Amino acid sequence: MQMTDLLAKKRDGGSLSTEEIDFMIQGYTRGTIPDYQMSAMCMAILLRGMDDREILDMTMSMMHSGETLDLSPIRGVKADKHSTGGVGDKTSLVLCPMVAATGLKIAKMSGRGLGHTGGTIDKLESFPGFSTAISEETFFQNVNDIGIAIMGQTADLVPADKKIYALRDVTGTVPSIPLIVSSIMSKKLASGADVIVLDVKCGDGAFMKTEAEARKLAEGLTRVGRLAGRKCAAVITDMDQPLGYTVGNALEVREALAVLHGEKKGELLELCLTLGSLMLVEAGVAWSVEEAKLELMKTIEDGSALWKLAQMVRAQGGNERAVYDPALLPRAKIQKEVPAPAAGYVSHIKAEQVGLVSMHLGGGRATKEDTIDLSVGVVLRKKVGDRVEAGESLGTIHASDEERADKAVKLLQSCYELSAEPVKKPSFIKAIVR
Amino acid sequence: MQMTDLLAKKRDGGSLSTEEIDFMIQGYTRGTIPDYQMSAMCMAILLRGMDDREILDMTMSMMHSGETLDLSPIRGVKADKHSTGGVGDKTSLVLCPMVAATGLKIAKMSGRGLGHTGGTIDKLESFPGFSTAISEETFFQNVNDIGIAIMGQTADLVPADKKIYALRDVTGTVPSIPLIVSSIMSKKLASGADVIVLDVKCGDGAFMKTEAEARKLAEGLTRVGRLAGRKCAAVITDMDQPLGYTVGNALEVREALAVLHGEKKGELLELCLTLGSLMLVEAGVAWSVEEAKLELMKTIEDGSALWKLAQMVRAQGGNERAVYDPALLPRAKIQKEVPAPAAGYVSHIKAEQVGLVSMHLGGGRATKEDTIDLSVGVVLRKKVGDRVEAGESLGTIHASDEERADKAVKLLQSCYELSAEPVKKPSFIKAIVR
Repeated sequence: MQMTDLLAKKRDGGSLSTEEIDFMIQGYTRGTIPDYQMSAMCMAILLRGMDDREILDMTMSMMHSGETLDLSPIRGVKADKHSTGGVGDKTSLVLCPMVAATGLKIAKMSGRGLGHTGGTIDKLESFPGFSTAISEETFFQNVNDIGIAIMGQTADLVPADKKIYALRDVTGTVPSIPLIVSSIMSKKLASGADVIVLDVKCGDGAFMKTEAEARKLAEGLTRVGRLAGRKCAAVITDMDQPLGYTVGNALEVREALAVLHGEKKGELLELCLTLGSLMLVEAGVAWSVEEAKLELMKTIEDGSALWKLAQMVRAQGGNERAVYDPALLPRAKIQKEVPAPAAGYVSHIKAEQVGLVSMHLGGGRATKEDTIDLSVGVVLRKKVGDRVEAGESLGTIHASDEERADKAVKLLQSCYELSAEPVKKPSFIKAIVR
Repeated sequence: MQMTDLLAKKRDGGSLSTEEIDFMIQGYTRGTIPDYQMSAMCMAILLRGMDDREILDMTMSMMHSGETLDLSPIRGVKADKHSTGGVGDKTSLVLCPMVAATGLKIAKMSGRGLGHTGGTIDKLESFPGFSTAISEETFFQNVNDIGIAIMGQTADLVPADKKIYALRDVTGTVPSIPLIVSSIMSKKLASGADVIVLDVKCGDGAFMKTEAEARKLAEGLTRVGRLAGRKCAAVITDMDQPLGYTVGNALEVREALAVLHGEKKGELLELCLTLGSLMLVEAGVAWSVEEAKLELMKTIEDGSALWKLAQMVRAQGGNERAVYDPALLPRAKIQKEVPAPAAGYVSHIKAEQVGLVSMHLGGGRATKEDTIDLSVGVVLRKKVGDRVEAGESLGTIHASDEERADKAVKLLQSCYELSAEPVKKPSFIKAIVR
């Protein structure tokens, strides 16, 4: 088999066979197929597309390019969630304890992300003492005992994706549904869960700019998941502004705790109820989304979700008292309000740029070696549709030094667009794809 | 400027600006843009296309990636010819002396080709003593004195094309009109001629399989040439069988000499008259193609074309007596006839595969370091449309050893397809594009 023949085939609009796709993925992962051939192939796939069978084959081949996680030592139905990436996305911190409190099992292996804030692991490290460096044995034990655990990534899951993603990133081949689907689903499948729900972001701050594109991606993801024998559903959500009110590690944990305490309603709770109810229905433990939502609300009302989080924090060496007393979480030295330059209605908040404010303050990683300041970030006081007076606070900067704080104030101001006319609050959940 | 932005633009069907194209071509030539980005760009160009302005910009940028040849020391109109590559193509050997005999100037710089036979330089070296290793001074002097010279490539012409072509070859991105046009025309423009005629091959043995594709390429080539300020015309010719009757270096020289001696008519002469007449008309020295053809025929009838070739061979150290006495050319030790396995009409001769027979006999180069046996090759006795009886000779193998000769007999047999029904001789010149 020759990669040049495969390139010609895809270039001319043909379908690659199962064997050809495996030859290509394994060859590229092992280094026998060079970057310049794979990048040309990614461009051909982007412009020519792939049919469902090809996407499934590519996903499975990528999944088998490295180790896979065998969750069979865990009793019960294992559920997992994936988000296509948003700014201020603290969904897992709320959703996982809620779902675990209903009896589904959450066994998450996570890497430390690059980006505006840390990943879920970093955020959880806001609980003093919390560690994800636990053994596989402890991991399985904890999930069986308390229903939830999160472990730092030790296994070499889907090396093909690491290599292909790095290449796509520098060759203009990121926005391709077949390539995105195989990248996401190979990792989700390798992580072993039975039920997978997906949060597909849509809008200015996301890969998919329109709902139509987001729907295509959501359909692609769930189709491949189901073809691979997993239960799958997806939600399409708005990313025309950051999710919720905080961007920054400990700040996001505080917001998540407020939701779990039942103190805060709004889009974050709505999203967690929707994703969670899809998990319960797909897992077959609830008859309807409505029933599932009621059950999930009960985990907040009776404190069982919060208790689940506390159990996990304790089991992984953290101070679980912080779950009930957020004052024990890291807090930045400096708080600065960000005054509105004029009166008006918030018409748009550039999500991507708010993320960069958090990054500027030290809350995110540009390279793997960077250390994160868990305390810093941004609290938004106004969101799209809100009325604001001139000089009124748009948000609060949490910073560790004055200089960066002052610059962040200006940066956050420029994230806001104001309109003289009243602005309708956007609908947050755009669609459910099952 | 970022190559990733350029990739995204072309991927989405946009036009690259003059500056962007130059950034890309010069960056890739210098090595600041890596192979994996350029290969993805080639695939995007292949699938998205380029408009005329982009193709011209790319051609000009490639042309200026290295040295260019300044032919201004030569008095008069300089003409050049390019063929998109065929099997048994000895056109230059006939055309150049004919045209030079009419007074146009032929100043050719040539590299040694890879392929089934050598390039024009290799073929000319069949004249004992002939050398293309002449100084630039001698080159210009000879063209001014006798009207024709051919020099081995000393200058570093169009390094961008060498690099891009090597990459396209292994990434499935050869068959793209914008990439083919810029590759051919950057080299032709860098070679400095005022008048450029192009022989675009079409059919089984060529890049362009159909006349419609060949026409598109011919139009692209002539358009860019004219936009760059040169006189340009193209001929589309059939490559459903080898050109003429010989494949192999000295054998092709023999065939060319037979045409120049007026002993042989047929498609080779027809092609040379057509290309030559286009040169004369474009150069403004003939009023019509018909008049130009008569003038060119006269150079054969009065021996002036042959004399021009003899002058060039002598001026470059070769034995010009071989022009009049082909027995002085290299001749292979062994000649073997290739019997037809059955009676019938020749319906097809696989041109590419006849080329491989010559290669197998040692007449071509697979790598730059290979040495060529100038004496070996194939003489075809039957061409498409000809009647052949069982056991009658289809052609003659010229070989240097028995083993290779025997294998070549079998190989050549398999190049021929015979039909029980009479077959019409194909029309050779399909179209003229001006």
